[in-house]
Amino acid sequence: LPPSAGEGSPTAYVVTVGNELLIGRTVNTNAAWLGRRLTLLGFRVVRMITVPDDVGEIASAVREGLERARVVVTTGGLGPTYDDVTLQGVAEALGRRLVLNREALEMVKRFYERLDGVLTEERVKMAMLPEGAKPLRNPVGAAPGALVECGGRIIASLPGVPREMEAMFLEEVEPVLRRIAPPVSIVECGLTVKGVPESLLAPHVKRAARVGGSVYVKSHPRGSEAGAPVVEVKVLASAPSRAEALNVAREALRIVGEGARSLGGEVVEEDCS
Amino acid sequence: LPPSAGEGSPTAYVVTVGNELLIGRTVNTNAAWLGRRLTLLGFRVVRMITVPDDVGEIASAVREGLERARVVVTTGGLGPTYDDVTLQGVAEALGRRLVLNREALEMVKRFYERLDGVLTEERVKMAMLPEGAKPLRNPVGAAPGALVECGGRIIASLPGVPREMEAMFLEEVEPVLRRIAPPVSIVECGLTVKGVPESLLAPHVKRAARVGGSVYVKSHPRGSEAGAPVVEVKVLASAPSRAEALNVAREALRIVGEGARSLGGEVVEEDCS
Repeated sequence: LPPSAGEGSPTAYVVTVGNELLIGRTVNTNAAWLGRRLTLLGFRVVRMITVPDDVGEIASAVREGLERARVVVTTGGLGPTYDDVTLQGVAEALGRRLVLNREALEMVKRFYERLDGVLTEERVKMAMLPEGAKPLRNPVGAAPGALVECGGRIIASLPGVPREMEAMFLEEVEPVLRRIAPPVSIVECGLTVKGVPESLLAPHVKRAARVGGSVYVKSHPRGSEAGAPVVEVKVLASAPSRAEALNVAREALRIVGEGARSLGGEVVEEDCS
Repeated sequence: LPPSAGEGSPTAYVVTVGNELLIGRTVNTNAAWLGRRLTLLGFRVVRMITVPDDVGEIASAVREGLERARVVVTTGGLGPTYDDVTLQGVAEALGRRLVLNREALEMVKRFYERLDGVLTEERVKMAMLPEGAKPLRNPVGAAPGALVECGGRIIASLPGVPREMEAMFLEEVEPVLRRIAPPVSIVECGLTVKGVPESLLAPHVKRAARVGGSVYVKSHPRGSEAGAPVVEVKVLASAPSRAEALNVAREALRIVGEGARSLGGEVVEEDCS
């Protein structure tokens, strides 16, 4: 069972574009941020792919996402430089042309009016969107995003700069996704076990994962397995109401906690969120 | 051109396994660390994929990596819990069975002798490797890694805990990769431009990227495009010798720096590494 608001939840792909990610210059915080938001909205993120600034590679990842998921979110590659080619890749995946979008051009114009009012070739390029795309307002920077709805699927292309990406997702994309998000509440709880190695806690984690309902339990070793073991256990539960989700999550935690104490472990519980 | 030690460089895939990555609980620092090491070794990382703790999903990502790259590195999913299933996925991708590896079992045994000497089912499970795999010593934790060489390709499976993954890569995997790494030197240089928006710097970045040789130039906006723009420019160059790589990288930087100054920008150069 993948991380889940349940097997029937709408699925999502996250496609992060940028050579800087592949050469390890930049840590992919965007993928984590989007994974969290999408999960809390009730989507099941089934895969994240990082590709270079290359039209063919971007198109192949987006095409895969469209085949396997309801929602594809891309980040990066919307800017003014020669290697910002994400929307070309999205257009290719959709079999559409890249066209100058009037509304996007207005956004770009308004942005640069504050600066020098000049519309260079590189700036106009940021208003070239796949045919039929809706431009997404960038509340922070220059490059508009793009939203395409196609065959019941949604592709949202956001900038790579984290605060631009986050603002655009919250203001422009979440309202659209909420329309197809399932009516579930997601609850996350955790506890920390000290003094029990993960390998001995494992059977209890497994039992907790079978508590029923849509629950996901995972242990993360933090200390050293031998010596001073510290294990964090996270539970993610979803249910039609928050109260039900809390019940399931707490029952799973109770099983792990009891198991840990029976092995002589010290248990510190966290609040649920 | 993907980030590159040249078009002819051996290619690599990074497959990171773990629901915690997909739900955004953990930021994927392992992918960045591996991307950097592989790049500096002269490999071209063509794609990174994050998949859930699911045998079929892991197998599909590894299979894709084997079709498209010379080296596939996986992280995560080697531990003792019910959802640590990476080696099952690797075995499935290779069409091999998962078998108890004697050498790996010795490693696990030795590790737990320091603790309580008990070999539970969950601990023995960590010694189940794909048939024909070579176990990789874990200098930090309990779970051995696995290395499979198959049809000229290499699959290395490492733990998800960063310090275990890093130690195992450096001690056990790098020596193997160096045998197929190209005889090139990779140099990275950078500069920071203040006072010029990225959109105006873009033509100069493009010119620098065409300086010839195997060079890759990318600009990263840090300030705001309007107002107080700050742009970081990174250059990655590879050549048969470090001196040649430095020459190419510095020429690319010179072009960007000159362009920035001609636009009234302030340029701060970084050392090359």
